[in-house]
Amino acid sequence: MAITVVGSVAFDSIETPAGKQERCLGGAATYFSLAASFFTDVRVIAVVGEDFGPAEQAVFDARKIDTRGIEHSTGKSFFWAGSYMDNLNEAKTTITALNVFASFNPQIPDAYRDSDFLFLANIDPVLQRRVREQMPDVKLVAGDTMNYWINDHREALLQMLKGLDILLINDTETRVLGGNTNMVQAANAVMGMGPDTLVVKHGEYGATLFNGGSSNTFKVPALPLSEVVDPTGAGDSFAGGFFGYLASQPALTPGAFRRAMFYGSVMGSFAVQRFGTERMQELTREEIDARFKQFVELTHLD
Amino acid sequence: MAITVVGSVAFDSIETPAGKQERCLGGAATYFSLAASFFTDVRVIAVVGEDFGPAEQAVFDARKIDTRGIEHSTGKSFFWAGSYMDNLNEAKTTITALNVFASFNPQIPDAYRDSDFLFLANIDPVLQRRVREQMPDVKLVAGDTMNYWINDHREALLQMLKGLDILLINDTETRVLGGNTNMVQAANAVMGMGPDTLVVKHGEYGATLFNGGSSNTFKVPALPLSEVVDPTGAGDSFAGGFFGYLASQPALTPGAFRRAMFYGSVMGSFAVQRFGTERMQELTREEIDARFKQFVELTHLD
Repeated sequence: MAITVVGSVAFDSIETPAGKQERCLGGAATYFSLAASFFTDVRVIAVVGEDFGPAEQAVFDARKIDTRGIEHSTGKSFFWAGSYMDNLNEAKTTITALNVFASFNPQIPDAYRDSDFLFLANIDPVLQRRVREQMPDVKLVAGDTMNYWINDHREALLQMLKGLDILLINDTETRVLGGNTNMVQAANAVMGMGPDTLVVKHGEYGATLFNGGSSNTFKVPALPLSEVVDPTGAGDSFAGGFFGYLASQPALTPGAFRRAMFYGSVMGSFAVQRFGTERMQELTREEIDARFKQFVELTHLD
Repeated sequence: MAITVVGSVAFDSIETPAGKQERCLGGAATYFSLAASFFTDVRVIAVVGEDFGPAEQAVFDARKIDTRGIEHSTGKSFFWAGSYMDNLNEAKTTITALNVFASFNPQIPDAYRDSDFLFLANIDPVLQRRVREQMPDVKLVAGDTMNYWINDHREALLQMLKGLDILLINDTETRVLGGNTNMVQAANAVMGMGPDTLVVKHGEYGATLFNGGSSNTFKVPALPLSEVVDPTGAGDSFAGGFFGYLASQPALTPGAFRRAMFYGSVMGSFAVQRFGTERMQELTREEIDARFKQFVELTHLD
């Protein structure tokens, strides 16, 4: 079933111990779409500037991603610059230029309205909620956020959370949002805010699925990699693999959620192996399934 | 098959957000022995002072642990005081009093010499090596160490590592010892120093087994717990469960190593639920096997 995703399509300048890359195609909606496109139809809502040209469009086209919801505006696309020189687990942001994103007012094309799945990537919770309210009939809604919204826009965020089935955030975000240093207690507090399901992303330590009682908790590791070239987009790629796989399934069984966690971690592991979306652009479904098997070997007794 | 373990038997005063406990029985060899005793025969080599009385002896006796190798010396037992008030993942040491441990010269009782398994808990690598050399015929040798020995006694540590089959250490210790911030590369460097197998303990994120090539890498999570009362001894209990289970197996197959990782994490999860060794003292094999099943549910697709 089709997923509509709203979020940023951007240019990123990234520095890591493996090197430097100027203005590569990035943004949460980009990583999410590419990852999810290996599993199901994806439709993007975003805004870009005049610097988004045929080369960038071709990246979406190659994966058959519907971009009719990408608005082309006068000015420059969202631009982010950051480095991971000291710590691959945390980006040090040097520039965030919202540009055309500052006045983004998401419009949902009619052709997107029959989407059964909706993903609200990390943007202003007011915009996330606006999109959510315009798509009242979707079957499953997942979303992401970040500490900035948790700390400084808590009211708007809490309103948005009421419309989510699944929230995907990291450890620190879970502890801050849930107001508890114990992960289980923090997760329970967050699930009390709206989402039935919480996926906590632990970076190099994988991710945990919380789903009501602890009997439904599920853990997936990250793949131990001998080189992480660029961590940018790992979390969004995880979300794309996770939600894309769910959308491809005939029923949302506990088993489907478990396999979705594995596919999330698989897509995250590919994302970090090259700069920007490079690895995702050349990926095949065969490589994805081979790595899925590697993950099963990494965790299963038999 | 029987395990001989050499290490500290001590008293600990511990403060955590859950409360305070004065002078509870502790020490790496104590936690290790109790955990391993649920799987196989355990024999301890340590030194204690006059403060080690019938109550402490009874803890070992109840688990049928052979304590003929515990030397009773004039003076006080090793004493450690620490707190986890700011961070449950890292103890803040306030007192370390070696006491009788300062002049510890491990003696191996004749009755221990047919042990097939040897565990060198975290003590001076010179002593670890001395014990190792006195037991040349053991089938499998595992050991632990800490940053103090890695940083300040590197030469002695490197000599000791040559005699190990399995090293169990944490993330930071692996990165520092291996001289690399990438975990896979650090693990490979450490395995080049002697041990064929490296178990890296990640605290609340579980543990990774590295064993030669990455095709043999295996991950076990930690159990998400809604309350961690006292993290002291979690790593030693992991080691006891891991090595105790291995010693109980007819053959050291890859499957045995995988199940051993699960049992390690199981024992670590029990250790932190009460102060000191309290939870380990009242544990049953039935509870252990029930939790093992919980771990399988936590990670397995089907």
